[in-house]
Amino acid sequence: MIDDTLDKPRVTVLGLGAMGTALARTWLAAGHPVTVWNRTAARAEALAPEGADVAATAAEAVAAGGVVVTCLWDDASVGASLAGVDLRGRDLVDLTTGTPAQARERAAWARERGARFVSGGIMAVPPMVGVPEAGGYAFYGGSRAAFEAAEAVLSVPLGTRYVGEDAGFAALYDVALLSAMTGMLGGIAQAFALVRREDVPLEDFAGLLAEWLVAMSGNATATAERLTTGDYTSGVVSNLAMMVAGNATLRRTAEEQGVGSSLLDPYMDLMERRLAQGHGDEDGPTGVVDLLAAR
Amino acid sequence: MIDDTLDKPRVTVLGLGAMGTALARTWLAAGHPVTVWNRTAARAEALAPEGADVAATAAEAVAAGGVVVTCLWDDASVGASLAGVDLRGRDLVDLTTGTPAQARERAAWARERGARFVSGGIMAVPPMVGVPEAGGYAFYGGSRAAFEAAEAVLSVPLGTRYVGEDAGFAALYDVALLSAMTGMLGGIAQAFALVRREDVPLEDFAGLLAEWLVAMSGNATATAERLTTGDYTSGVVSNLAMMVAGNATLRRTAEEQGVGSSLLDPYMDLMERRLAQGHGDEDGPTGVVDLLAAR
Ligand SMILES: NC(=O)c1ccc[n+]([C@@H]2O[C@H](COP(=O)([O-])OP(=O)(O)OC[C@H]3O[C@@H](n4cnc5c(N)ncnc54)[C@H](OP(=O)(O)O)[C@@H]3O)[C@@H](O)[C@H]2O)c1
Ligand SMILES: NC(=O)c1ccc[n+]([C@@H]2O[C@H](COP(=O)([O-])OP(=O)(O)OC[C@H]3O[C@@H](n4cnc5c(N)ncnc54)[C@H](OP(=O)(O)O)[C@@H]3O)[C@@H](O)[C@H]2O)c1
Repeated sequence: MIDDTLDKPRVTVLGLGAMGTALARTWLAAGHPVTVWNRTAARAEALAPEGADVAATAAEAVAAGGVVVTCLWDDASVGASLAGVDLRGRDLVDLTTGTPAQARERAAWARERGARFVSGGIMAVPPMVGVPEAGGYAFYGGSRAAFEAAEAVLSVPLGTRYVGEDAGFAALYDVALLSAMTGMLGGIAQAFALVRREDVPLEDFAGLLAEWLVAMSGNATATAERLTTGDYTSGVVSNLAMMVAGNATLRRTAEEQGVGSSLLDPYMDLMERRLAQGHGDEDGPTGVVDLLAAR
Repeated sequence: MIDDTLDKPRVTVLGLGAMGTALARTWLAAGHPVTVWNRTAARAEALAPEGADVAATAAEAVAAGGVVVTCLWDDASVGASLAGVDLRGRDLVDLTTGTPAQARERAAWARERGARFVSGGIMAVPPMVGVPEAGGYAFYGGSRAAFEAAEAVLSVPLGTRYVGEDAGFAALYDVALLSAMTGMLGGIAQAFALVRREDVPLEDFAGLLAEWLVAMSGNATATAERLTTGDYTSGVVSNLAMMVAGNATLRRTAEEQGVGSSLLDPYMDLMERRLAQGHGDEDGPTGVVDLLAAR
């Protein structure tokens, strides 16, 4: 049993799946007193040899003190695990993946129960936890005071990026980045499918592809500037009309290679819709954001 | 009039649109003798004050000697411009955008006419031409001997990447990279649309987004390795089952934010199809390539 009078603050971890276990292990290894609880007790007991204090119930775990970190399957399991638990005066950091609306509702729910609430969105997989050079981090949104009180603890397993008082923002940033990644992975899959049946040296090709995507990632910054200023046309190097002219080659090559363009069609269709509205001189991607969600 | 006895070789440029003009200007500025021809003569004559030799016909331009660079609207305009022109003994470098099949047919067409043929795919926009620090380059495929003979000339306006004897490969690499970019731009548009109506500082967000995409671009290399070895499961850090579990959050957040998930659905659907085939323990993207184009 670790003595709480040591200088490192206690952490309570509810949920010992792959991610919760990786988090708890990192705090234990760093010398924090750690209380753990898991619905299926065996996963909590597995951490006792590493020094964890195993609580029999979630209520007991919360009562043990320290910041309460939840890392459960989904938002509903957070509600289920903490139903009827006394949260008064506690700081709750919820690292369970959810939507912005779920995080905002959970924040209101926690406040009603007298707790300060922070919602986190983890941009890492378990093997990156506690490995600073892997670059994993989590977004945090919600009570700034609670985040600041917990920051020294939270920064042990993963980098921290506080993105504002809105508890929904961690999930919003998390999902936005994962959405962009999903688009990129779809593009990468399309690229490999095009060359797959040809005698192309795949590793050389991959190097060129990655280098190109890194160069083109600067579009994110350009798009932000244009959305902020509302000026979609000055300094455009590759305008929408030119990009749309290229769509035909992308579609035709995909047909030639027996792949089809279904992964790219929705975005190419939106570009074509924006062009048809008379915006050919615009920067390529920015107007599409307006088609999806005008402010 | 520049004297051909100077050490720099002559270049003939057919097609003086935005790109052809940028190319011709760069060779002129570098001291190469340059012969130009354009269907609409005014665009050729505009380069005379910079030292270009203006040819009245494409045949005359080709006869002037030096490597013949075509940079026309599409493959059909290359055929139209060079119809009946004597190409015997010439080296033709075609920088007109087209598909791999078009480039292969054009290569056969050029060989039948006694010319060596190289097809290029330009990964740059005109303002990057002649600006090495802008990082623009072109892929080249086709006759290695012709490429090597022309390389010193070709590397003046843009970096050169020779990708093999197959004349279709320049277009294949070009279109594959543009396809991946299209996916990424769709993902970026989705990300901005999700945050657009919220009080999110867009430039900070863009910095995080770009950093994330750069980190995730490594998926290209991992995918190449898996496709090469055929081992889609060892060392997987984020498997298909986990990624598919996240799709629901991406879709639900998109609905909450009033954006919808149409840009991401085709790729998420393919992941779900692959999972349904029993491949949940695979690396996320690689199996999707097989769904699109098994070797
Ligand atoms: N793993 C990753 O790569 C990763 C990355 C980023 C974010 N995340 C997020 O982290 C969270 C946890 O993920 P994980 O990978 O650790 O998942 P996991 O290995 O499947 O573990 C799920 C955890 O949730 C618990 N749980 C499920 N339903 C419950 C309920 N109704 N009541 C109480 N507990 C319940 C499970 O308890 P039992 O042991 O009793 O089943 C287990 O502790 C998820 O929100 C996930 O999206 C994970
Ligand atoms: N601009 C870019 O950013 C960029 C980037 C990468 C690749 N490319 C490729 O480079 C090529 C040229 O692009 P560009 O931007 O220079 O286009 P552009 O400014 O529209 O110029 C098109 C050129 O093609 C000529 N042309 C069109 N149809 C013709 C025909 N039937 N016969 C003879 N000549 C014909 C035009 O001659 P007239 O002057 O008589 O109309 C003009 O010289 C295209 O294949 C394009 O995909 C361009």
